Amino acid sequence: MSNSTNNGSQKFLNSKRLKVAVLGCTGMVGQQFVKMLDGHPFFETAALCSSKNSADKKYQEATDWIVGGVIPDAVKNIEITDTSAKKLLNRDIKIVFSALPAGVAKTIEQDLTREKLCVFTNASAHRMELDVPVVIPEVNPDHLDLIDAQKNQNGGFIVSNSNCSTTGLVMALKPLLEFGLNSAVVTTYQALSGAGRNGVASLKILDNIIPFIPKEEEKMEQETQKILGSLKDTCIDKSKIEIIASCCRVPTRDGHLESVLVDLDQDIKPEKLSDAFRNFQGIPQRMNLPTAPDRPLIVRTEPDRPQPLLDRDAGSPERAKGMAVTVGRIRKKNKRLSFFLLAHNTIRGAAGTCILNAELAVAKNLIP
Amino acid sequence: MSNSTNNGSQKFLNSKRLKVAVLGCTGMVGQQFVKMLDGHPFFETAALCSSKNSADKKYQEATDWIVGGVIPDAVKNIEITDTSAKKLLNRDIKIVFSALPAGVAKTIEQDLTREKLCVFTNASAHRMELDVPVVIPEVNPDHLDLIDAQKNQNGGFIVSNSNCSTTGLVMALKPLLEFGLNSAVVTTYQALSGAGRNGVASLKILDNIIPFIPKEEEKMEQETQKILGSLKDTCIDKSKIEIIASCCRVPTRDGHLESVLVDLDQDIKPEKLSDAFRNFQGIPQRMNLPTAPDRPLIVRTEPDRPQPLLDRDAGSPERAKGMAVTVGRIRKKNKRLSFFLLAHNTIRGAAGTCILNAELAVAKNLIP
Amino acid sequence: MSNSTNNGSQKFLNSKRLKVAVLGCTGMVGQQFVKMLDGHPFFETAALCSSKNSADKKYQEATDWIVGGVIPDAVKNIEITDTSAKKLLNRDIKIVFSALPAGVAKTIEQDLTREKLCVFTNASAHRMELDVPVVIPEVNPDHLDLIDAQKNQNGGFIVSNSNCSTTGLVMALKPLLEFGLNSAVVTTYQALSGAGRNGVASLKILDNIIPFIPKEEEKMEQETQKILGSLKDTCIDKSKIEIIASCCRVPTRDGHLESVLVDLDQDIKPEKLSDAFRNFQGIPQRMNLPTAPDRPLIVRTEPDRPQPLLDRDAGSPERAKGMAVTVGRIRKKNKRLSFFLLAHNTIRGAAGTCILNAELAVAKNLIP
Amino acid sequence: MSNSTNNGSQKFLNSKRLKVAVLGCTGMVGQQFVKMLDGHPFFETAALCSSKNSADKKYQEATDWIVGGVIPDAVKNIEITDTSAKKLLNRDIKIVFSALPAGVAKTIEQDLTREKLCVFTNASAHRMELDVPVVIPEVNPDHLDLIDAQKNQNGGFIVSNSNCSTTGLVMALKPLLEFGLNSAVVTTYQALSGAGRNGVASLKILDNIIPFIPKEEEKMEQETQKILGSLKDTCIDKSKIEIIASCCRVPTRDGHLESVLVDLDQDIKPEKLSDAFRNFQGIPQRMNLPTAPDRPLIVRTEPDRPQPLLDRDAGSPERAKGMAVTVGRIRKKNKRLSFFLLAHNTIRGAAGTCILNAELAVAKNLIP
Repeated sequence: MSNSTNNGSQKFLNSKRLKVAVLGCTGMVGQQFVKMLDGHPFFETAALCSSKNSADKKYQEATDWIVGGVIPDAVKNIEITDTSAKKLLNRDIKIVFSALPAGVAKTIEQDLTREKLCVFTNASAHRMELDVPVVIPEVNPDHLDLIDAQKNQNGGFIVSNSNCSTTGLVMALKPLLEFGLNSAVVTTYQALSGAGRNGVASLKILDNIIPFIPKEEEKMEQETQKILGSLKDTCIDKSKIEIIASCCRVPTRDGHLESVLVDLDQDIKPEKLSDAFRNFQGIPQRMNLPTAPDRPLIVRTEPDRPQPLLDRDAGSPERAKGMAVTVGRIRKKNKRLSFFLLAHNTIRGAAGTCILNAELAVAKNLIP
Repeated sequence: MSNSTNNGSQKFLNSKRLKVAVLGCTGMVGQQFVKMLDGHPFFETAALCSSKNSADKKYQEATDWIVGGVIPDAVKNIEITDTSAKKLLNRDIKIVFSALPAGVAKTIEQDLTREKLCVFTNASAHRMELDVPVVIPEVNPDHLDLIDAQKNQNGGFIVSNSNCSTTGLVMALKPLLEFGLNSAVVTTYQALSGAGRNGVASLKILDNIIPFIPKEEEKMEQETQKILGSLKDTCIDKSKIEIIASCCRVPTRDGHLESVLVDLDQDIKPEKLSDAFRNFQGIPQRMNLPTAPDRPLIVRTEPDRPQPLLDRDAGSPERAKGMAVTVGRIRKKNKRLSFFLLAHNTIRGAAGTCILNAELAVAKNLIP
Repeated sequence: MSNSTNNGSQKFLNSKRLKVAVLGCTGMVGQQFVKMLDGHPFFETAALCSSKNSADKKYQEATDWIVGGVIPDAVKNIEITDTSAKKLLNRDIKIVFSALPAGVAKTIEQDLTREKLCVFTNASAHRMELDVPVVIPEVNPDHLDLIDAQKNQNGGFIVSNSNCSTTGLVMALKPLLEFGLNSAVVTTYQALSGAGRNGVASLKILDNIIPFIPKEEEKMEQETQKILGSLKDTCIDKSKIEIIASCCRVPTRDGHLESVLVDLDQDIKPEKLSDAFRNFQGIPQRMNLPTAPDRPLIVRTEPDRPQPLLDRDAGSPERAKGMAVTVGRIRKKNKRLSFFLLAHNTIRGAAGTCILNAELAVAKNLIP
Repeated sequence: MSNSTNNGSQKFLNSKRLKVAVLGCTGMVGQQFVKMLDGHPFFETAALCSSKNSADKKYQEATDWIVGGVIPDAVKNIEITDTSAKKLLNRDIKIVFSALPAGVAKTIEQDLTREKLCVFTNASAHRMELDVPVVIPEVNPDHLDLIDAQKNQNGGFIVSNSNCSTTGLVMALKPLLEFGLNSAVVTTYQALSGAGRNGVASLKILDNIIPFIPKEEEKMEQETQKILGSLKDTCIDKSKIEIIASCCRVPTRDGHLESVLVDLDQDIKPEKLSDAFRNFQGIPQRMNLPTAPDRPLIVRTEPDRPQPLLDRDAGSPERAKGMAVTVGRIRKKNKRLSFFLLAHNTIRGAAGTCILNAELAVAKNLIP
């Protein structure tokens, strides 16, 4: 990282905070955005938007808060508005965080970019579009360059984070690229919050596992290849790494656990893999971005870790809790290496990475 | 199956029932033995054995019944005895079902064989010994021949069923052998009952997944290769199929779910795999053994099956409930095929297969 | 019970079965009706009705079966129809079991009675109407006389069972009336299935208790007083017994547990209370109705019973599983007695009692 | 509160911290002590004691940390010692926090007092002894006077907090005394952590409720009467308020929920009760003790609160999280009032109140 960028970040911290809006503010991920943006050094939550049902209510009246702690004082009396670009622009908002459902996100987000708004979205609606980067700042920060084409066309742009189960996987695969990663077989244990607040009925999951999450396996496979792809001119050359995913919903509240088996060109020892994980860092760490964890990957050496209950909130400093991916049980079987990883699905797998993307964009002066 | 064997089975049904003992009768698997032996056409429960703590108590007083329904009338007043061969022999018992913990099983089971008793055990203590067959009757009934050597040496013999997570896997792999099975990657979601009645503290598993079960992965790998090995003279030539297992404990009561990815020589379609599963049958079906399910493998075509809650009791007729393995979500990815399977861990994965082994031994006139 | 009635029941068993319909057949209670009516000696399921969404689909295609076992063969291919009286009458149906949601039940059920249909309903819509009896056959069979007025007015009639949490309570209170019951304080631990298949989101209840169930406490209080009231001419003189209920939803699948404290006029010992429970029987037992449990109240003497997991399916014979209420931990504190009770909420607390009501009506020749 | 005491507290804060030991440091409550003492303004954890098994190991090696977050840096390398008074005295320790099991606590704690140590214990061993006060600082701080007699006899003393389910109840009953409290009927929903780390096997509680906790109901009844009793000379005149408790274990991790029904002399409105709860404060609040919550009782007005998941960590400031008791659903039925309350069982119901007792003793200059 060049000093100049770092200075840019530093400089920013001394100026006043950018106003942002949260779309889909009452849902699970929406609440996580609100929580993580509270007291944020770069951003100030200036608008909370939701569907017509909640519009005009105060945030604390419209919201069944479920993400821990209490609704931040700074936002609890904000009146929820509907998702119209005009209202956002009137309030001097440039950045929009979207936790909209995929269905409605498509049109709304696109409309906002035409009003020169910068949309950082957790919705899957635009992820597979050629000019929309799917970014994990520690992994493929250069993909942000794709937004130039969007800016030229629309004025604003969309940057997406990846699906909640993809993020942890890709972060763990990134440091393995140097050993010649050919394929990864991943099997998941995904928490209930990944399906949203009312997504899984209790009678369906108490004393049960559901071995199917619609479109999840496809997302994990396609998004991983896009994120690990290389930027060529104005498009991304997808990675050829084979990803085979099998996804299950399990009765845990938060934290996606994944069992991963990788085929590498090199015949390396588990210790080397372990070091590669431990030493992994990216631009967010070097730029010292507010939501970046000191260590993106934490390696646990106990025989029975990571566990959702014990490791989902991993990450320091305080603002980066839930942003670290925990890795453990690194084992070797012939030429293949296997391990478990755990990532907090609504923080690192959703709101947290989305905010980190915006921090990176700010630090790189990409916000018009 | 030759008619003669079938006649043997038939003939047996007309004669009187063999007296059997259950060792470790108060534990989870012990209870399952007691339950499945109730009203059994071949066997009559004549002795219930347990550790000194329970000895001399009536079964219903010593037992915290947890396997559903109520303690069978025929056994509830049986006085528990300790595990001494003399007492068993005095009661005219020839067959012993063992649900002993691995630690104590080693010596006790060996001692019993020296008294010419036939031990069918769920304990892992002897599984890796060269002359002890690990048998799933639908898969490797011929391995029962190994008991000749034991008989010659000791008078009695030990036959083991496989570990609870191995059984379902091997049953699903068996019909794939014809397509040239090279390797299987398996990731498990194992129920609490697999760890015994007090095996997992509630605070360790509520809202959690534990990605480690001691020795489980090794067992799955070694036992699978032994069971799928071929009998050569008096020993087993282990299969070369590579098995890579990753095992987790999940908060379900019963039923081990497994995600499996197989590499086959042949490039076959999912439908062909599905047919191979559906049509799979073994000797127990042809001999019409009492605890044999009509269909050892049931294929579900819904997008979200098998599920522990819905499929763990699969199997018909009534006596074979929990003896069928359910398979679903058969998918193809390049040359590899993946699917989920579910097996009831204390029935098909423990007591049920153990009883089926004894039924097979009886039908084949292997009990001295 | 007079011999003549008993003969009537006997006589019935020799004739052919009455055709019945199930309204709301795809829901939780609807499925329980379908399950309990399978092979019923009095009734034959001739029509399955549901909302327009499911209409015209085969039952097995429209239904996400969740009540254990599999969809009965006899009904799985029945085409679901909408809830129109004409269609039911065309099929020669006289009796309708309703598992409709309260909202739609009001009008639909009333319309059916005008077509001379006999509606046995689990819906709460009409329970508080003066001429609709809320009947638990062991407790207040005489309240069935209220249907005369309905018949005179409409041709058909509605008989309701009580709310799922009321039924167990009232059954346990009935034998206490002779000791001078003044009041009962009841606190509940209600299972998820009481809220319907999708009633409670998993994120709301995993690792949680919800101390509120809308309108439940009022229902328990009002219904108890109505059921324990005395029939005077054509109306019911409500009981003056004070009921104070506090209701919670807990993370169990089935079986409502209730903690009860009663004030009695007489100062009796726990043993006497225990005997009163144990010896309690009603008309269904004396008439030997198909769904009647031998013992409506089962007393457990272990220190830690009843438990939902172990006792919810109590009741014999087979057809009456889940129809017995289990009572335990009977304790005395000064002049007050306390105990716990457990009743299967979708069987004894819903479909089962509803069917038992119909059986009683048939046996008493009340079906026109 | 006199100014002098307050000054004493103030003065203390300027001097150096008192060295304390934690007995039973690896268990659930022991961990909670360690966590809450981290950075404590009055106390410094100078010794961690445990059974011989753990002795000589470093705390982080001996401890399976389960109370959230990570082991505090300041203690993770402390070597665990056995529980001998000499070692404690050598380290200049005056105050001992005990999380010992009741069985071993009796002798060990008594021995320590003879060495002039001040024992603040969560163990039940001495609670019913005449000269041992059971103190909740907001409720009966004057009972601390009982320690004089102990000091005279032994040099040191024992102060106990109440049982985890008693504490929340008594705190809610205290402000009702002014309305003439005659009796309270309480029914509990108690979390798993109340039984210790391995106290409840998962197979016993998943999908279940256990309506029995050994000795719990007796403790709630007796301790409440002792705590609400009045100090007369050197002994406590027990309260005559009748307490009737029924206790259940439920599948939640932390937080005991209780349903309470009270009989009052006065016929007051729910709003008045609500105000009495809301305005309740005690000496800890007035003295501004470090672990005292601003509001000991928090009243929630939503229809479905308190809930364990949402309210167990109630309390501010940060150090007092889990120290506030949440009350809700205040209802009136004739002359009786009912409500639900929730208290964190290992914080307010155990370690937290124990520490608050020690803070009070320090502030009152009762430590020799």
